[in-house]
Amino acid sequence: MRILGIDPALHITGYGLIDQDINKIKLIEAGFIKTSPKDFLGQRLNRIHIALTKLINDNLPKAIVLEKLYAHVKHPTTAFILGHARGVICLTADISGIPVIELGATRVKKAITGFGNASKLQVKRAIQYFLDLKDADWPEDVSDALALAVTYANIQKHNIKFS
Amino acid sequence: MRILGIDPALHITGYGLIDQDINKIKLIEAGFIKTSPKDFLGQRLNRIHIALTKLINDNLPKAIVLEKLYAHVKHPTTAFILGHARGVICLTADISGIPVIELGATRVKKAITGFGNASKLQVKRAIQYFLDLKDADWPEDVSDALALAVTYANIQKHNIKFS
Repeated sequence: MRILGIDPALHITGYGLIDQDINKIKLIEAGFIKTSPKDFLGQRLNRIHIALTKLINDNLPKAIVLEKLYAHVKHPTTAFILGHARGVICLTADISGIPVIELGATRVKKAITGFGNASKLQVKRAIQYFLDLKDADWPEDVSDALALAVTYANIQKHNIKFS
Repeated sequence: MRILGIDPALHITGYGLIDQDINKIKLIEAGFIKTSPKDFLGQRLNRIHIALTKLINDNLPKAIVLEKLYAHVKHPTTAFILGHARGVICLTADISGIPVIELGATRVKKAITGFGNASKLQVKRAIQYFLDLKDADWPEDVSDALALAVTYANIQKHNIKFS
């Protein structure tokens, strides 16, 4: 099963694409979609929309995994702007007919590192281990996206085994 | 000049379409796009995207007017979800090549009623007066959308006169 994890933001949207079979999780592609603060908001959102549509069409994931909506946000304006990017991702997924799975941040950190309050670096190292990668020289947004995809892959694997 | 004001929300997105010439502002169409809480978030956003695309294609507005991003929000989760709908509107506008104008809420209320802290009912009555309508039996979301369009129309008129 091909799974696409996405960590949305207006400036840098991280993504991680993996293949999961019964025995192994394999990295297909990871990276980020960057937009320019010089552009208008609509242009930046369209850049995310176009890049994500291409990523979906090229790789045909079966599910897109996002972090669950969270209630307590220290910076409402940041959350408001983040909501713009996340909305465009949910829309793009629906246009392409791909289901969106939402996982809580604590659940993902716990599944990946064993600790619900793990640091960004701990998540990055755990992802490196899970995907058997020598190098993990990428932004945190990419690790976070991969963590979402890997957690969902493990949930799916667990369901296959025990359901 | 044809102007489309939009008051975005996930549940009910109000819109108001007006024509502005030198002497008069005329209502073309007003209404709302409603989505069902039973549907997935992506489906609801796609409903807004499809309805707005049709509205734009049918009426070819020259500008879309939204309320400016505001910094102080009491309910971060509401702002986050509202951001999803607003992001989809900004994206849809950009796909259609329509510029998005943002006006502050206080500026709009002051322009329409004379008071920056006017109530929703005051805005509704002022809009009724501006557009010379006998009946104004519509949700507040529609009045707010029309208020945005009318305020921008008046700014444009002012610019034509004095610039």
